[in-house]
Amino acid sequence: LNTDRPIGIFDSGVGGLTVVSHIQKKLPFENLIYFGDTARVPYGTKAPETIKKFSLEIANFLVEKDVKCIIIACNSASAHAIHHIRKHYPNIPIYGMIESGADFTLSQTKSNFVGVIGTTATIRSRAYQIHLERINKNINVSSFACPLFVPFVEEGLYESDLIDPVIDHYFADLNTEDIDSLILGCTHYPFLYNKINEYFNGEVTLIDSGEAAANYVKEHLKEFEESKKDREPFYHCYLTSATNKFFSIAENCMIKPFDEIHYVDID
Amino acid sequence: LNTDRPIGIFDSGVGGLTVVSHIQKKLPFENLIYFGDTARVPYGTKAPETIKKFSLEIANFLVEKDVKCIIIACNSASAHAIHHIRKHYPNIPIYGMIESGADFTLSQTKSNFVGVIGTTATIRSRAYQIHLERINKNINVSSFACPLFVPFVEEGLYESDLIDPVIDHYFADLNTEDIDSLILGCTHYPFLYNKINEYFNGEVTLIDSGEAAANYVKEHLKEFEESKKDREPFYHCYLTSATNKFFSIAENCMIKPFDEIHYVDID
Repeated sequence: LNTDRPIGIFDSGVGGLTVVSHIQKKLPFENLIYFGDTARVPYGTKAPETIKKFSLEIANFLVEKDVKCIIIACNSASAHAIHHIRKHYPNIPIYGMIESGADFTLSQTKSNFVGVIGTTATIRSRAYQIHLERINKNINVSSFACPLFVPFVEEGLYESDLIDPVIDHYFADLNTEDIDSLILGCTHYPFLYNKINEYFNGEVTLIDSGEAAANYVKEHLKEFEESKKDREPFYHCYLTSATNKFFSIAENCMIKPFDEIHYVDID
Repeated sequence: LNTDRPIGIFDSGVGGLTVVSHIQKKLPFENLIYFGDTARVPYGTKAPETIKKFSLEIANFLVEKDVKCIIIACNSASAHAIHHIRKHYPNIPIYGMIESGADFTLSQTKSNFVGVIGTTATIRSRAYQIHLERINKNINVSSFACPLFVPFVEEGLYESDLIDPVIDHYFADLNTEDIDSLILGCTHYPFLYNKINEYFNGEVTLIDSGEAAANYVKEHLKEFEESKKDREPFYHCYLTSATNKFFSIAENCMIKPFDEIHYVDID
């Protein structure tokens, strides 16, 4: 096995960059290929069949690039497409956001009351709830879709006051006295970490699904082929469309910038 | 020529339904095929090349369905793809939103100060400005991109107070004393007509680009093959993905509902 083979990471847009930043921190010698499906972003408002189709097209592309594993850095795609991709590529480790995020949450909650926020597709899938309840039958899960968060983040408006009433609106039904942990079940949401933390006065543990996944990948990659060399890794980026804010958001978020940017068609 | 052939109308999502409603009113005997690219919505945040590619794929699909003309019921696609589609289909009338919207605006303005709001792609194209200035050299045009309006409309939140601060934000730089007319340069924006009208206290003429286009199509269709029969026309809808709110928004907006819904892949 060649440990120099890159890790493939994909998302619909900028959300997966929050996962990239954790991988850069935790696995600083790994080569990375990031794929952002910016021509078709967002995924989380669309049908499961559409998300499955798009996700497999990206997995095909990454496998062609000889990645050693794939991180689905998108909760909507993790919820709806991970089994589909694993079936097509049984010999490549495919890491999603849901299981590692749910497991980490179970290690954090004391009250057994947890919240999940995500896209419409992720919340409808009940993927977090199913996994949380499978591991801990006494868990109480409150789930809420927050579909406007993704466009605000894609527009780079995650620090703007404009999103405050939207946060108030989505969280209105969330009984904040009950939950002690909230899963940010969309890789775009860590951009809103400070806003959401302020909303809860810092009294709820916010779970970054991408950070939990990065920890999981680090642990499992060790078992088979983590790149240990003290080298400068490469960070390549493939996008399906130029977009307004991608690179300014990437600059704010990544530990080290991309070395190469490519625009590709995959459909 | 067979006047029973349907009119093809397309948009990225629900925006083109505002155009459908005007066509239903003004041309009540025409058969319509509506195409909503709901798997890839929105268009207006994406690159011109992406918009051109998607638009031609839809035009190919509609031509296969034997439409007698195509209405590009999306300003972003009108701005970036109309020449591309006309080049591929020189024998089929292709109607966009820009020219008819600009011409109608010129017939309305008295001060010669007009505003244009649209997606990032439409505003960057300067398509309205170029056409307005070509016809009237004394026109003064202020243009503003309002990229968050489309996701609010696609989520059905066009009557919600949540959008008020977003409207205030986008219009902050618009000198409302100057302009007497404002082009709603995105077919999603007529859903926000009341909100925007309230913002201006009814003192600015709001131009619905889709209504202007429907008038233009009615006039030109007369010349070649308007369906005059007193019959029940069919309204067929093709979507690339199921989405959350499409049909509830369609119900609010259309004069008569779709008879048939189909889900298709076109890429």
